[in-house]
Amino acid sequence: MKITVNRKAHFNAAHRLHVHNWNDEQNTDVFGKCSNPLFHGHNYELIVSVTGEVDPETGFLLNLDILKKIIKDEVEDYLDHKNLNLEVDEFKTINPTAENISIVIWNRIRRKLNPDFKLKVTLYETPRNFVEYWGE
Amino acid sequence: MKITVNRKAHFNAAHRLHVHNWNDEQNTDVFGKCSNPLFHGHNYELIVSVTGEVDPETGFLLNLDILKKIIKDEVEDYLDHKNLNLEVDEFKTINPTAENISIVIWNRIRRKLNPDFKLKVTLYETPRNFVEYWGE
Amino acid sequence: MKITVNRKAHFNAAHRLHVHNWNDEQNTDVFGKCSNPLFHGHNYELIVSVTGEVDPETGFLLNLDILKKIIKDEVEDYLDHKNLNLEVDEFKTINPTAENISIVIWNRIRRKLNPDFKLKVTLYETPRNFVEYWGE
Amino acid sequence: MKITVNRKAHFNAAHRLHVHNWNDEQNTDVFGKCSNPLFHGHNYELIVSVTGEVDPETGFLLNLDILKKIIKDEVEDYLDHKNLNLEVDEFKTINPTAENISIVIWNRIRRKLNPDFKLKVTLYETPRNFVEYWGE
Amino acid sequence: MKITVNRKAHFNAAHRLHVHNWNDEQNTDVFGKCSNPLFHGHNYELIVSVTGEVDPETGFLLNLDILKKIIKDEVEDYLDHKNLNLEVDEFKTINPTAENISIVIWNRIRRKLNPDFKLKVTLYETPRNFVEYWGE
Amino acid sequence: MKITVNRKAHFNAAHRLHVHNWNDEQNTDVFGKCSNPLFHGHNYELIVSVTGEVDPETGFLLNLDILKKIIKDEVEDYLDHKNLNLEVDEFKTINPTAENISIVIWNRIRRKLNPDFKLKVTLYETPRNFVEYWGE
Repeated sequence: MKITVNRKAHFNAAHRLHVHNWNDEQNTDVFGKCSNPLFHGHNYELIVSVTGEVDPETGFLLNLDILKKIIKDEVEDYLDHKNLNLEVDEFKTINPTAENISIVIWNRIRRKLNPDFKLKVTLYETPRNFVEYWGE
Repeated sequence: MKITVNRKAHFNAAHRLHVHNWNDEQNTDVFGKCSNPLFHGHNYELIVSVTGEVDPETGFLLNLDILKKIIKDEVEDYLDHKNLNLEVDEFKTINPTAENISIVIWNRIRRKLNPDFKLKVTLYETPRNFVEYWGE
Repeated sequence: MKITVNRKAHFNAAHRLHVHNWNDEQNTDVFGKCSNPLFHGHNYELIVSVTGEVDPETGFLLNLDILKKIIKDEVEDYLDHKNLNLEVDEFKTINPTAENISIVIWNRIRRKLNPDFKLKVTLYETPRNFVEYWGE
Repeated sequence: MKITVNRKAHFNAAHRLHVHNWNDEQNTDVFGKCSNPLFHGHNYELIVSVTGEVDPETGFLLNLDILKKIIKDEVEDYLDHKNLNLEVDEFKTINPTAENISIVIWNRIRRKLNPDFKLKVTLYETPRNFVEYWGE
Repeated sequence: MKITVNRKAHFNAAHRLHVHNWNDEQNTDVFGKCSNPLFHGHNYELIVSVTGEVDPETGFLLNLDILKKIIKDEVEDYLDHKNLNLEVDEFKTINPTAENISIVIWNRIRRKLNPDFKLKVTLYETPRNFVEYWGE
Repeated sequence: MKITVNRKAHFNAAHRLHVHNWNDEQNTDVFGKCSNPLFHGHNYELIVSVTGEVDPETGFLLNLDILKKIIKDEVEDYLDHKNLNLEVDEFKTINPTAENISIVIWNRIRRKLNPDFKLKVTLYETPRNFVEYWGE
């Protein structure tokens, strides 16, 4: 019997939407004020969802302390209070949209998580816009 | 690799629960005070969820401006500050339950959305009651 | 030493903004779609705030069961699932704005509450618009 | 066409995380302060999600009054203001983790619900930790 | 010019409402199921509000790291995952109502805070019940 | 009889905490990662609170359309998607702390608002940190 355990986390960061091989006019046409070259920023709210079988002895899917440690190492320490475009390797070439940020987060957590578990991430860029990615 | 982009929206409206070919007693028996013939109303909170492939160039599933425009035209302009029973064509014959409102919203957005995308709508009638519809 | 105890409650209702001795054009000019003659509606969220001295024996300002009963009798039973303009005496002559609804609620609770307590009501008409009234 | 109807509910309870055939040291090693033998507690927020076909006559998946009655009988009356470890039969032998509480709730609602419907429960132990269980 | 800085925090705990020099029947009469001798519990959400003058050089009322440290030492480490009645000195003689818990928290923070600042605490016992205390 | 009308708004922006006549070491000592020279950012949530007498004819304290227009002109158009340090005149010399941002917003709204009204602004920098300023 499968169960899903979810943990919320938070980080904030600056970014701009910008495609590297487009000129400024193209970027402004598509991304509007989100392409401001001096950056803007968000409080990103993250939900990490892990699915698998409950351990019949402990009654845990996994110990949340382990999940909190992975989120701290792979997401908070890596992204919090950063300029995503200038300071985070993945976004030096790809555009830091909510979609791409969620994929980067998923990949970073995935490699640290027991492969028996399925993983989904939900990322709120604002209280009204959010994306979900589950690697399939 | 699939991703889901979600956008929240809002409208408020008056309605009553009422089956046309039932008499008043039957309607009151089943729907109680929700069948008040003088209407009551709600702040409806809507989440529109679109699933598909991320465009590798822009890093967008779709430009949110397009989705916001569809929601404005098909949901907000059509339902906001309306009496659902008296002013919205679909509810002149069917009962404006949260279930049916979500189906009407799904159908209206579906016809404007790229057919490559999957669509789900989540509709909160109150903070404690909500429905999900995905057209399958 | 003063303390404030707060209790949240909920009701939903239909209304329209309408000044009786104005004609339709004047009402539409000032209230726009909020003046739709067929009504619209809201989920009203209410916070009732009571201030006074803590009883040193019980450690209660007042027993919440008493406050919940007052809110049920004076607000929920009186306003929930109603058409405010057509079914609520106070709004047959005054306009059911959030301001006026909060004053009506305050007056109804005030007369049932121990006069030693101060009273404030906070009324959310939507998640983004709310009013506060404290009778001074 | 399938639809999902969701209803939120609430209960609060005391518990401790404790595996019966482990000694105190083992319990403390794995569960830390959550294993405090004098208990701690939570406000549990519950979402009950029921999936099936909409009744074409009423426009309801099911009458929410029926679902609210099941939740009251099977969850609120059974768990609210209780000590889960000492007063709830299921947790006299199994550990009252969020995972196991959600499974107990699912089983109790499942047996009262029309078998044509699918059931999922989502249980928030805190605003940042929650689990989902759907019996598959 | 005055400003107020607010910081949210969280702890969870078990308690029962119980007046020591009343017998069981009196306690049950007044507090109902909240007086369960085996305890129940809550996720307490706390808002600590500090009012004073902004430092013209830093633009801070106070460095939030200082406030977070006080909240950790005086509230979280002292109350989190505790049985309030059995493990917290203040509640060995007084009843751990939300009112009294907020007064205890206020007193503990007050003695660590710069006396030039005014202090208010807001304590949510559940999402629908909360109290405010400001020591006047 | 006084009443308060509140309106929520939203903007997001990049900033860094930085005192101009301090060197980098001093800034990092006091502001830590909030002083990252490449900026970070937030979703700022704003509540604008206006207090005065209700107009007995309309039942409005003020028409919310007027308040929404002031918030759009003075806050959203001025701050949304901006780099506060580099693009907003006031923060070229003062530090864009939540305290100072709330004072700037208060001053900008104050000059457009009827002087008979009192004004307060509440600014959430994150869901857990917020400030209040009322100009007294």
